[in-house]
Amino acid sequence: MNEHTTSAAANVLQPVQWADGAVKLLDQRLLPEETVYLTLTTPQDVWEAIRELKVRGAPAIGIAAAYGVVLGVRNYAGDAAGMAVEVRRHAEHLATSRPTAVNLFWALDRMKAKAQALADAGTVSAEALRELLAEAQRIQAEDEETNRRIGENALTLFADGMGVLTHCNAGGLATSKYGTALAPFYLALEQGIRLKVFADETRPVLQGARLTAFELHQAGVDVTLITDNMAAHVMSKGWIQAVIVGTDRVAANGDVANKIGTYGVAVLAKAHNIPFYVACPLSTIDLSTKSGADIPIEERHPDEVVRGFGRRTAPEGVAVYNPAFDVTPNHLVTAIITEKGIVRAPYEAGLRRLFEAE
Amino acid sequence: MNEHTTSAAANVLQPVQWADGAVKLLDQRLLPEETVYLTLTTPQDVWEAIRELKVRGAPAIGIAAAYGVVLGVRNYAGDAAGMAVEVRRHAEHLATSRPTAVNLFWALDRMKAKAQALADAGTVSAEALRELLAEAQRIQAEDEETNRRIGENALTLFADGMGVLTHCNAGGLATSKYGTALAPFYLALEQGIRLKVFADETRPVLQGARLTAFELHQAGVDVTLITDNMAAHVMSKGWIQAVIVGTDRVAANGDVANKIGTYGVAVLAKAHNIPFYVACPLSTIDLSTKSGADIPIEERHPDEVVRGFGRRTAPEGVAVYNPAFDVTPNHLVTAIITEKGIVRAPYEAGLRRLFEAE
Repeated sequence: MNEHTTSAAANVLQPVQWADGAVKLLDQRLLPEETVYLTLTTPQDVWEAIRELKVRGAPAIGIAAAYGVVLGVRNYAGDAAGMAVEVRRHAEHLATSRPTAVNLFWALDRMKAKAQALADAGTVSAEALRELLAEAQRIQAEDEETNRRIGENALTLFADGMGVLTHCNAGGLATSKYGTALAPFYLALEQGIRLKVFADETRPVLQGARLTAFELHQAGVDVTLITDNMAAHVMSKGWIQAVIVGTDRVAANGDVANKIGTYGVAVLAKAHNIPFYVACPLSTIDLSTKSGADIPIEERHPDEVVRGFGRRTAPEGVAVYNPAFDVTPNHLVTAIITEKGIVRAPYEAGLRRLFEAE
Repeated sequence: MNEHTTSAAANVLQPVQWADGAVKLLDQRLLPEETVYLTLTTPQDVWEAIRELKVRGAPAIGIAAAYGVVLGVRNYAGDAAGMAVEVRRHAEHLATSRPTAVNLFWALDRMKAKAQALADAGTVSAEALRELLAEAQRIQAEDEETNRRIGENALTLFADGMGVLTHCNAGGLATSKYGTALAPFYLALEQGIRLKVFADETRPVLQGARLTAFELHQAGVDVTLITDNMAAHVMSKGWIQAVIVGTDRVAANGDVANKIGTYGVAVLAKAHNIPFYVACPLSTIDLSTKSGADIPIEERHPDEVVRGFGRRTAPEGVAVYNPAFDVTPNHLVTAIITEKGIVRAPYEAGLRRLFEAE
């Protein structure tokens, strides 16, 4: 494992880890009631864990799948060329676990390319296996490093004693560790900077209550849970000095798509003169999407709203509108925080520059 | 019964009715899953129904209690003076069912005063009983008339085809009929004016989902349920032309206390140039409260937030902030709609004038 996984002072949850020749995976379906780590020993175990949402969040899924490939060849007795064939076979199966997860394909492609390069170089199979495990660990370490840099950059915007509001879960549970929007909270804890975090519960699926409050609380971050409709009141009391959220996609003009409710929080922040920050890796910024108008808003099943928690909360037959995301226009975004630095308006030029510098 | 109860075209739910010598009461604890009407035949039945929240909403509680007094004397064999004693005894017991409900005491006082007046006049007991029932029915009819007038005044601000957002439940279930903020929706339906209503589910207690969506849907009003954090997105799509809410208390300066989340909706309405209306009877306007700063905000148990849906939604030990109300400052209120007319800023003078004209 890389050094960051044990050096941190904060007790940050890691959804996926490689330990003792197996994948140790936090079963997220049982959160927050139970914290259960599963031990996965075959690619099929990993396939099922991804399929059944025991692991969620694009980066975490990619990491789990990369380790799944390693599980598939760890007892392989042939040469590196044969191992590359096996890697391809397992990767192709693992790719069917969540057909729309971009990070999943990306991580599996990287494992296949590595296996082929080792075969081409005529590496002996014991060495090839070590190299494949190292590649999977690199994928994890790079993600963690990206998140740590996002956190460090974000932390420059915060000061001791500040209240910070977040919405949904852009946390360690979705990534290798730290998360994006939640990364500065973990780093602040490690550095003794006291932040008071308010977490919107984030209806309808309650990622804020079930995941954000859970992971911050267990790490020792000072977190207070509120319902989404309390954010304005909490802001009016002067308790919030910054808002920080993650994002599913940033358009070239700086419009930000994120979990439903984010746009409302941005409007409220503006009305209370509170800066509104978005944290994300460069991989989330899509320069080929011109503006938020080009981002399709997924509508989800009404049952998420009316049957979310084990009992019906509205009468049969009532119409429900359930958009999963909304778009926050760039003029409400104070800054976008990436692993390569902080971008402010005008976003079009600033975001393009991030990629030119790469 | 008074004529309004059957003349309406809209199938408006009535939480309390007098029928066949008994109180017919809609058991609100079972909503929205079941619509069960209870038949109450004794004051103790009514006492328990109030105590156990089978009936809720200040006006509805007052009406139920007034009928409860009638139930207590409907078989009384003595004279009007003895009946007045009995009325006082039952009223004193009924007053203990919800010790903080102002309308409850007001309605019971009115029944006691009526009984005393009948005794003083030497009315024969059969006639006194009829008069007591008529008084209880008058309390109900006056409340209904107040709501109808609020609805008629509110409806002058709406036009066919408009989208209107409401928060929490200021509906018929809390009053004799029609409600305050929901009254214009019922009147619009009766008059063929098509409004498209959006109801915030209103976390944590979900009055919007359980009560507003329920009563509007069963009446035939076009209602769409959303979670609170979708309001901004729905506004940004241009679907909302007005917001209307009820209130628990209006201060002399026009600041409005209402269910948590109301203030956020008002900020969002302002940001989208959507008028924000407050509907209430004069009895809700408290000129002795100078401003919203003088209205205490009740904080309620964290379980409402983390155990609201039949199972725990956040980890044990997480801090929760759960204010039941917030205050919307007068500058965000476009108009206050009462049974005596519509008041706009400056509110201090306008609200005072309402009472001077009385």
